[in-house]
Amino acid sequence: MCRFLAYRGDPVFMEELVCAPCHSLVHQSLHAEEAKTGTNGDGFGIGWYAARPEPGVYRELRPAWSDENLRSLCSQVRSGLFFAHVRAATGTATTRANCHPFVHGQWMFMHNGQIGGYQAVRRKLEALIPDELYENRGGTTDSEAIFLAALADGLAEDPVGAMARTVARVTAMMAEAKVREALRFTAALTDGENLYAFRWASDGKPATLYWRDHGDRLVIVSEPLDRAEPGWQEVPRSCVLMARKGASASLECMDQALSRAAA
Amino acid sequence: MCRFLAYRGDPVFMEELVCAPCHSLVHQSLHAEEAKTGTNGDGFGIGWYAARPEPGVYRELRPAWSDENLRSLCSQVRSGLFFAHVRAATGTATTRANCHPFVHGQWMFMHNGQIGGYQAVRRKLEALIPDELYENRGGTTDSEAIFLAALADGLAEDPVGAMARTVARVTAMMAEAKVREALRFTAALTDGENLYAFRWASDGKPATLYWRDHGDRLVIVSEPLDRAEPGWQEVPRSCVLMARKGASASLECMDQALSRAAA
Amino acid sequence: MCRFLAYRGDPVFMEELVCAPCHSLVHQSLHAEEAKTGTNGDGFGIGWYAARPEPGVYRELRPAWSDENLRSLCSQVRSGLFFAHVRAATGTATTRANCHPFVHGQWMFMHNGQIGGYQAVRRKLEALIPDELYENRGGTTDSEAIFLAALADGLAEDPVGAMARTVARVTAMMAEAKVREALRFTAALTDGENLYAFRWASDGKPATLYWRDHGDRLVIVSEPLDRAEPGWQEVPRSCVLMARKGASASLECMDQALSRAAA
Amino acid sequence: MCRFLAYRGDPVFMEELVCAPCHSLVHQSLHAEEAKTGTNGDGFGIGWYAARPEPGVYRELRPAWSDENLRSLCSQVRSGLFFAHVRAATGTATTRANCHPFVHGQWMFMHNGQIGGYQAVRRKLEALIPDELYENRGGTTDSEAIFLAALADGLAEDPVGAMARTVARVTAMMAEAKVREALRFTAALTDGENLYAFRWASDGKPATLYWRDHGDRLVIVSEPLDRAEPGWQEVPRSCVLMARKGASASLECMDQALSRAAA
Repeated sequence: MCRFLAYRGDPVFMEELVCAPCHSLVHQSLHAEEAKTGTNGDGFGIGWYAARPEPGVYRELRPAWSDENLRSLCSQVRSGLFFAHVRAATGTATTRANCHPFVHGQWMFMHNGQIGGYQAVRRKLEALIPDELYENRGGTTDSEAIFLAALADGLAEDPVGAMARTVARVTAMMAEAKVREALRFTAALTDGENLYAFRWASDGKPATLYWRDHGDRLVIVSEPLDRAEPGWQEVPRSCVLMARKGASASLECMDQALSRAAA
Repeated sequence: MCRFLAYRGDPVFMEELVCAPCHSLVHQSLHAEEAKTGTNGDGFGIGWYAARPEPGVYRELRPAWSDENLRSLCSQVRSGLFFAHVRAATGTATTRANCHPFVHGQWMFMHNGQIGGYQAVRRKLEALIPDELYENRGGTTDSEAIFLAALADGLAEDPVGAMARTVARVTAMMAEAKVREALRFTAALTDGENLYAFRWASDGKPATLYWRDHGDRLVIVSEPLDRAEPGWQEVPRSCVLMARKGASASLECMDQALSRAAA
Repeated sequence: MCRFLAYRGDPVFMEELVCAPCHSLVHQSLHAEEAKTGTNGDGFGIGWYAARPEPGVYRELRPAWSDENLRSLCSQVRSGLFFAHVRAATGTATTRANCHPFVHGQWMFMHNGQIGGYQAVRRKLEALIPDELYENRGGTTDSEAIFLAALADGLAEDPVGAMARTVARVTAMMAEAKVREALRFTAALTDGENLYAFRWASDGKPATLYWRDHGDRLVIVSEPLDRAEPGWQEVPRSCVLMARKGASASLECMDQALSRAAA
Repeated sequence: MCRFLAYRGDPVFMEELVCAPCHSLVHQSLHAEEAKTGTNGDGFGIGWYAARPEPGVYRELRPAWSDENLRSLCSQVRSGLFFAHVRAATGTATTRANCHPFVHGQWMFMHNGQIGGYQAVRRKLEALIPDELYENRGGTTDSEAIFLAALADGLAEDPVGAMARTVARVTAMMAEAKVREALRFTAALTDGENLYAFRWASDGKPATLYWRDHGDRLVIVSEPLDRAEPGWQEVPRSCVLMARKGASASLECMDQALSRAAA
């Protein structure tokens, strides 16, 4: 399990959300409260859109809480759309290449969850990735593989549908391989303009996800950054939070998308 | 605060104590129970005597819990005297040079605690280290400085007395600088044959320290490795546990040594 | 391209070969003379047999020349069979998981060379690895994939034949994918008792390989450790140097094995 | 010895100078041509002014040539004043804290050179740093100590004079300690608005330094980024290149400043 944060809105210094709040993401790296693992010290990453269509990325295998570079970067860079992620590994190595977010062109993805019995379906999952995308497989995580598979599944045209199709494929693979553990998929995705956050699990127990929309500032987080501040809402299970360019955030039921995908 | 382990006895694979027990030191790096900070993820180190008078050392700034090299090393190396340490930094950077144990010639030292108001006394503390030892100052921690100062204070001839003298000096410096925080000094020291473990604090609240002596196997730890196993005893506050070559372990009151040092 | 060293013989401190000679492997990491790339600073690794059937391994992504842990380890550990490798990456990331040697059970493998047009054949190469071995794929290099594929090709029963078969398969894949670059395969393999060193390339231009056999001390290296010392011989192109347990080293033509493999 | 680059002018993406040119600083990290050490792989750093009076800093102990984060950062961040530095260590550890540039408030400093016999004068040099600045001593290099000592010597009021005074002090210390090696001081300093580059050595053999001023773009480098491009001039020995805010670059003789300092 991991903890993450996504922001869309008026450009802000990233530190305002990543480092400063009393329960900031950096604080959650050491003291997560709503996760099975309170420590998320197996690397971290931050990705932001600013000067180019492609995001900048800084990923590192040290824990976020002691990384001076992260603090400096977050105090200098202002962005209107960024992701930050602290990792608690679930079986794969602590390398930069296994840290979120993952980037492909202008797309960026991060994940909190895991594919139960990953080793049993890893081959099949990787087989969903076409050769031209497989070159971008830099690490060994289930999360990166899901992202690349979804890209092949039509992410550019239909982000939510493609994710639902990939998740449905993986769920089917797991059933076929008689995996008993669940697929847990709390995740965020963006193309630099539109933002999508997913909260779904095959056993109905996805990792937590909250959001707060002040109109000009949408924040999506694994855990509220400051419970004293009002406005935090839970993203309901099996839902997708969508924040399309120029539109305010809205919720859609993911089960519908999954049903369509499975149909 | 940190967690540590020291072993003296029949040669054993280090993994038997460092990695394998249910509450092994590696486990304590993620889930310490008797410390203010449950996570000790700011680097780690292991030092062992085997083929030479000087110990081998492996120190790394990643967390211990995910380090493949540590696991491999501990499963391969057998030693009759070794130290292991997981670090929770108290203000200085996460670098290898700031990881314990510290080594000078055949001497090895590790520390769990801190000098309150370190920045206020750092210059004076470093001034205790003579030029020929100052070359060995590779990092910036209070712990390394105490070790080098104690070496200058006659560690080779009188280990407990030298440590007491240095601790007394630092306490006096702190008083002079009007530091209100305590000096906490739970530590272990060895020359490769004799082993000394200290538990002292200027405010009477030193970090925990336990030991278990099965005759051929003396284990000293911040927290018992397995509470189900009998034989763990607390090192009393203000005491030094001494295990001289060929002799069994015994306790001495550190206050006496400190009184002598202050006299 | 990389540089490596393999040793079999009377147990010696690894530093005698890895760190001490005037053109030691650590020196070659900074000043290789017979390679296109003089700097081999993209990580390193060392694997040694001592107390167990499985080797110990220390791999790290920093350059070898500045790694204090490597120096300490090599000065402490004595082994009668060990590998050391300094890496110059050819397109894949600098992570521990991409550093040589690679280990599976009691087998250990390291490689100096590369599969030309790797991205074009990566999928097919990985498809040679059966599911039960694929779990061990921790990195993304061509070298690790060759090793795992060879394990599936019968490495345990027929090491040279299995390597030849895998190399033949990869060469065929490359031809099929119309890759014009060569497959260069200078490599070493051992099961902890028998040692095999390969020097082959599809274009007849394999990386250099030398050996020196003083009866009780067989050293195999990318570049002689000290040209002033007599006894260095070049491993001829397309040859395998074999040092079976209890036997002295001998050369066999690899083309024969490859012909048999291709037949 | 190291290699570095400083830029002042119209805001540019840092990659234009750090990564892209045929002999960019990243290229120089692997293939320096005018230095005794061709490899500068002992860490690197980049510091830039953009959104705040204080610079952002990214320092890392890996080699620059393989760092994905550096490439991403340089492709995203635009700055009108920045420093970049690749390090070849001269005796101190490879840690982030020993990587240049060093920052204090709005000041930033980087150095290519070394204090001969550093260990013999290290204590005295550190004694020049007052307590309130000593807190900022995060590493163990001579370069950081010179910077902190110069800050104490009045850097804010008289940058060139303060540097000259500190250099004069260190030279005197070296003479007193009978050090025979030279003090080599090729360095760059800025407060975010004014830029100073020094080229001096006690033996008249400072490391190389070049500059090119296209009016709106002043580039100062250890080695020209592209010899095919016209306009590179050598900074003469014993000179300071000054680029004050709103003024074009000019040269001053450093010996005069040193004479004044020594007077």
